[in-house]
Amino acid sequence: MNKFLSELAKNLDPYTPGEQPKDKKYIKLNTNESPYGPSPKVLEAIKTQATEDLRLYPDPESTVLIKAASDFYKLPEEMIFAGNGSDEVLAFAFAAFYSGKKLVFPEVTYSFYPVYCNLFDVDYIEIPMGENLSIDTSLMKSASCGVVFPNPNAPTGEMIDLDMIRAILESNTDSVVLVDEAYIDFGGISCSQLVKEYENLLVVQTFSKSRSLAGMRIGLAFGSVQLIEGLNRVKNSFNSYPLDRLAQYAGVAALEDNEYYVKMQSKIIKTRKETITELERMGFGILNSYANFIFVSHSMVQAEDIYKKLKENNVLVRYFKKPGIDNYVRITIGTDDQMKILFQNLEKILKG
Amino acid sequence: MNKFLSELAKNLDPYTPGEQPKDKKYIKLNTNESPYGPSPKVLEAIKTQATEDLRLYPDPESTVLIKAASDFYKLPEEMIFAGNGSDEVLAFAFAAFYSGKKLVFPEVTYSFYPVYCNLFDVDYIEIPMGENLSIDTSLMKSASCGVVFPNPNAPTGEMIDLDMIRAILESNTDSVVLVDEAYIDFGGISCSQLVKEYENLLVVQTFSKSRSLAGMRIGLAFGSVQLIEGLNRVKNSFNSYPLDRLAQYAGVAALEDNEYYVKMQSKIIKTRKETITELERMGFGILNSYANFIFVSHSMVQAEDIYKKLKENNVLVRYFKKPGIDNYVRITIGTDDQMKILFQNLEKILKG
Repeated sequence: MNKFLSELAKNLDPYTPGEQPKDKKYIKLNTNESPYGPSPKVLEAIKTQATEDLRLYPDPESTVLIKAASDFYKLPEEMIFAGNGSDEVLAFAFAAFYSGKKLVFPEVTYSFYPVYCNLFDVDYIEIPMGENLSIDTSLMKSASCGVVFPNPNAPTGEMIDLDMIRAILESNTDSVVLVDEAYIDFGGISCSQLVKEYENLLVVQTFSKSRSLAGMRIGLAFGSVQLIEGLNRVKNSFNSYPLDRLAQYAGVAALEDNEYYVKMQSKIIKTRKETITELERMGFGILNSYANFIFVSHSMVQAEDIYKKLKENNVLVRYFKKPGIDNYVRITIGTDDQMKILFQNLEKILKG
Repeated sequence: MNKFLSELAKNLDPYTPGEQPKDKKYIKLNTNESPYGPSPKVLEAIKTQATEDLRLYPDPESTVLIKAASDFYKLPEEMIFAGNGSDEVLAFAFAAFYSGKKLVFPEVTYSFYPVYCNLFDVDYIEIPMGENLSIDTSLMKSASCGVVFPNPNAPTGEMIDLDMIRAILESNTDSVVLVDEAYIDFGGISCSQLVKEYENLLVVQTFSKSRSLAGMRIGLAFGSVQLIEGLNRVKNSFNSYPLDRLAQYAGVAALEDNEYYVKMQSKIIKTRKETITELERMGFGILNSYANFIFVSHSMVQAEDIYKKLKENNVLVRYFKKPGIDNYVRITIGTDDQMKILFQNLEKILKG
C-alpha cells in the first residue's frame, strides 16, 4: 500500500473513461462525441487568439464566454458559471452542495456521480430503476435531499418531462436538484429557463457533445445567484483559471454559430432514427433515446460479445460490465457512412 | 446565508488572484507573467491542432506532453504528471497526500496553500519567518509531517539550496515534501532530479511563468511512481480530461523550443539585475530574488501608497495587505522599456 496517500485518496474509486485510442483505425462510437467537426468559425477564433497574449493569464471569470452564454440562453450573467468541461462543473457542484449531505441519483446513470461522492464525502443512495431501465421519479420526489439526474439519462437516453422536473423541484425545496443536460440538444427540452423560477435548480451543460468540442473542455451551469456563488466559492478554492484563453473564445464562437450546430444536431437525429429502424429490423431491443446514442440489446447474442467482435473489426462501442445493464451496448450515433459499416458488422455477428 | 451550501463550502476562504484587467492600458507587473510571448513554434503548434479533431476528447493521460517532458527532464514517464496549470496540480496533491493530515508551510508564501487546506481538510501550521523574511528551515526539518514550500519562495524570491532540501526530505521520510518550483527557471537550481532518490519528494512546475503560457494552463509534477499514482487517483475522481488538446500540444512545442525560452529567461535575469541596481539607488530595500519578481520596500513611502500611485499611473504591481509584508510591494520583472517607465514613476512618487 502507498503509505503517502491520505485516507481520502485511499478510499477513492476513480472513474474509467471510455477508450480514447491514439491511432485512427477505429470507427469511434464509444464516447458520444459528435461525428461532425466544430463550426469553422470556432477553428478560426482559436487561430485568431493564438497570439503572444497567451503569456497572460486568462480572465478568471471567463467573462466573454459568460456574456455570450447570457445572450444565447437568455439568462442574466450572474446565473451562469463556466468550467473546464462539465465534469469539472459537476465536481464543483458536488463539493458546494452535497458534501457531507444526503443525495439520490438513479442506479443506472452517469458513473462519475458515485466517484464524486467518494471524493467529496457525499452520502448517496442509488434509486433502483423501473421497467425498461426507466427512472423511478416517485422516489426522487419523496427523497427530501439532494437529487441528481442526467436528462436525457445516460446510458439509456430516457427523457423526464418538465412537469415532472417541476414536481421534483417543488418537493425538495431545501436541497439542490441538479439536472445534467449533457445530451439535451438532440431532441430533448431543456429546463434551463426554470432556474428563474426555482432557486434550488442547477442545470449543467457541455460543449463536448452537441457543439463538437470535447477536445476543448467547456462546461456551463445555470442556476440561481446563490447556486452560482456556491460554485465560484469552490472554483476559487481549487483553481482560479480553469478555462484557458482559447477555450473561452472557442466557446463564444460556438454559441455565435448556432445555426451550424442546429444543422449537425438535425443530421444526428435523422441518423438516430434510421439506425433504430435498421437495428430493430435485425431484432435488437432499443430503449427510447433523446440523446446522440442508443442503448441496445439482442436476445440472441450477448452484449459483451457484440462489443468484442465489433472492436475486432475496428468499431468501438461502449460496454458496461455492471449488473442490470451488462446485456446492453451503448452506440454513439455517427455519420450515415459509419452507421452503414456498423450495420454490416452487426449482420455478420448475428449470423455467427 | 446561502442555505444550499455544504458545510465544506461554507468554511471555504477562496483565493483572490491578482487583478487581470480586461483593457490593455496597464503595464502589468502584478502576476509574474513573462513580458515576452511564447515561442512562435508554440503558436504554430496550436494553429496546426485547431482542426475538426477538436470534436474528440483529448487523451486523458496527456501522453504526448508526458513523453516530451520525460525527454526534457530526463525522468521516466511514470514519474511525471500533467494538470490544468500548477494550481490544479497543487490542489490534487493537497487532496492526495495531506487531506486529514498535518502540514507545515512558511507563514509568508503562496497564499493559495491555506485555501487548499480548507478545501481538503488539512491541519496546517504556518512556520514563522526568520530574519529578512527568510524561511526557517530548521522548523521544517523537525516538522515530522507534510512540508510545502515554493523554491524560490513567493513573494520573497528566496532560494533554499539542494543540501537543505535533502535534509528536509531525510527528516520527513514518511510524509510528502512538496517543492513548488513555479519560479525555478530564473536562476534557481531545480531539485527535480532528486525525485529519483527520494520517494517522498514531489516537485511541481508550471508553464505560466518562464514558458510564457499562463493563458494555456499547463502544470507538471515530478515524483516517485507512488506519488504520481496518488495524483492520478484524485485527478480521475475529479475530471478525466483536465488538459485540452491544444494545451497538450502547446506544452510539447514549448519544451521542444527550449532554446528560445532560455534566451527570454536570460533577458529577464539581466533586467532583474539592472532593476535591483536602479531601485537600490533610489533607496529601496530589496530581498535577494531568484525569481522573475522582486519584493521591495522603502523607508520613506508606505508600500500601499506606492501600489496605489503606480496604479493611478497605469502600472500594476502586487500589494498584500497582510501583517509582516504590508510594507512591501512585489514587482514582476518586465521588459527594459517597462522597467524604465516604472523607474520614472517611482522617482516621482519618492519626490512626493
